Amino acid sequence: MVQRTGKKLLDCVRGYVDDVPPMWIMRQAGRYLPEYREVRASTKGFLDLCYTPEKAIEVTLQPLRRFDLDAAILFSDILVIPDALGQNVRFEQGEGPVLEPIENAEDLAKLEVSKVLDHLNPVLETVKGLRSSLDENKTLIGFCGAPWTVATYMLGGRGSPDQAKARLFALAEPELFQQLMDMLVEASAEYLLAQFDAGADVVQIFESWALNLDEVNFQNFVVNPTVKLVEKIRAVRPDAPLIGFPRGAAAMVPGYIKATGVNAVGLDYAMPLEFAREHISPLATVQGNLDPLRLVSGGKQMLDRVDQILEAFEGRPHIFNLGHGIVPQTPIAHVEALVNHVKGR
Amino acid sequence: MVQRTGKKLLDCVRGYVDDVPPMWIMRQAGRYLPEYREVRASTKGFLDLCYTPEKAIEVTLQPLRRFDLDAAILFSDILVIPDALGQNVRFEQGEGPVLEPIENAEDLAKLEVSKVLDHLNPVLETVKGLRSSLDENKTLIGFCGAPWTVATYMLGGRGSPDQAKARLFALAEPELFQQLMDMLVEASAEYLLAQFDAGADVVQIFESWALNLDEVNFQNFVVNPTVKLVEKIRAVRPDAPLIGFPRGAAAMVPGYIKATGVNAVGLDYAMPLEFAREHISPLATVQGNLDPLRLVSGGKQMLDRVDQILEAFEGRPHIFNLGHGIVPQTPIAHVEALVNHVKGR
Repeated sequence: MVQRTGKKLLDCVRGYVDDVPPMWIMRQAGRYLPEYREVRASTKGFLDLCYTPEKAIEVTLQPLRRFDLDAAILFSDILVIPDALGQNVRFEQGEGPVLEPIENAEDLAKLEVSKVLDHLNPVLETVKGLRSSLDENKTLIGFCGAPWTVATYMLGGRGSPDQAKARLFALAEPELFQQLMDMLVEASAEYLLAQFDAGADVVQIFESWALNLDEVNFQNFVVNPTVKLVEKIRAVRPDAPLIGFPRGAAAMVPGYIKATGVNAVGLDYAMPLEFAREHISPLATVQGNLDPLRLVSGGKQMLDRVDQILEAFEGRPHIFNLGHGIVPQTPIAHVEALVNHVKGR
Repeated sequence: MVQRTGKKLLDCVRGYVDDVPPMWIMRQAGRYLPEYREVRASTKGFLDLCYTPEKAIEVTLQPLRRFDLDAAILFSDILVIPDALGQNVRFEQGEGPVLEPIENAEDLAKLEVSKVLDHLNPVLETVKGLRSSLDENKTLIGFCGAPWTVATYMLGGRGSPDQAKARLFALAEPELFQQLMDMLVEASAEYLLAQFDAGADVVQIFESWALNLDEVNFQNFVVNPTVKLVEKIRAVRPDAPLIGFPRGAAAMVPGYIKATGVNAVGLDYAMPLEFAREHISPLATVQGNLDPLRLVSGGKQMLDRVDQILEAFEGRPHIFNLGHGIVPQTPIAHVEALVNHVKGR
């Protein structure tokens, strides 16, 4: 077994078990923090914040100043990849991301994988800056969107509850779809490897739209591309610590872990604890899975649920986290209560 | 064992197995049919269509004239219940339903269960009319929304991808929430019993928003109220044939069936066939679960998937259906191909 590094969260991803689980909070650098809103207001837009290392470093570190968290997660967005490939990405107030959707071979031909790392150099500078700013025992998490999830935006032009445009494109134009996915696998592998080179300890692959797929589509859109992505990373870094987060995959999560070989898996809050315990290999690290709205509401219902989660995963490698991103209306006092409770048991 | 009725779909709900499964299509009376759009255009609005028996009967029967389907499903909407309770419900063009959200005890006090059946008399007239119009071997399906799903609209004021307003209300105001749920159980039980009295053979309980719930919320919001609803129905009609459809419940579906005792369960398209086969009791009838976008796209990918579904459920009671409602852009020729394929095997 590999030696412990002293970074509690990294060690947990590698399979070590502690009495008190390490924790971070998805979207922990975000709008629920006044200091984040202040920095955000000083930028020309969301992508400007992602591409300005000084500011991105600042907002990444903010939550660790307030709360006893075990990891910082790079402040960035999954849509920097399409942006870097040459597809125009804008973030509109109250609307989320807007892209010129990819609709045919001509649109696809305009994208260039070779440009990606140059374009994302500011993000990699952020990772380097974070590496030198962080305490030694804190884990630095990098990330990217999984190919399918990124493709849903590239094909759909914006977020949608059912990803219908992307799903229809994949069924109607399987070859073009495959070209796009191969491009995303390639770009994401280079990007994640560059994040490791810049100092990331662990990376998380966000498959935010793993729901709404039957198992054939899940295999073709989610599992196969993620397997390729993991292979490309491990060909260079055989022991790269990876967290997969196939949100909404439910009964397909155990198969996803086996096929992809990720070290750890993020569980959304709709994953029943008993199902996870019974069907996910005890060698895989689990991460999750408090409903963010329980954190908004706070009090006994939250703490009771936290205890259930902690008890369910006692004795196995477990990173405490939410089951989805923290929401803007979350009271900071509730976050403090949560962290104290997890850490103080 | 109960005798066969000759209504193939009803018999299947009761556990009989046929070589060729009975089939219907969720939202089969809908916008993909030009004859539906014509009737719809002649009304003052969506609820007007639901409350005009002559027109509701016409659109209910339309898909059976075109396709060899085994059931007609009452044309109505799950939001007739809040409308009947006294909450204002409007359907706005391109926006879906809009309600004045329930926010406190005063709002709740304005609702009246005693008014429901009077208000819904036109819907019950539709059921009666359908009963006398339908061929003897066709099953008539009635339905209602499950309490939680209806509550998400009553509390949220409109549809939302995460039902956040309703989920927060349930956590913050558990007593008021319980009052609302009890009211919905009561109203829905009376409404479904009245549908049986009017001639429905089977009823389906649509839990369209069973996703986004951790297992504690799933138990409290979905399972417990549905158990109460089923009890109230079975207290009057012990052998009432019931289909539950907890959309998105994934790994929680087997527990839902056991707890509620529904005869049949609708499976959304994200339910892996292998999981269903292994974890759902072979005595329960399964219904589903083709992705509606496969029907939009059509051709080989659709027929291959249909074959997988049929093979997975061979030898057990299975109603062929989509895993969610048919969408407006579905080509009618693809529906014909689907029906011919299922029926012609």
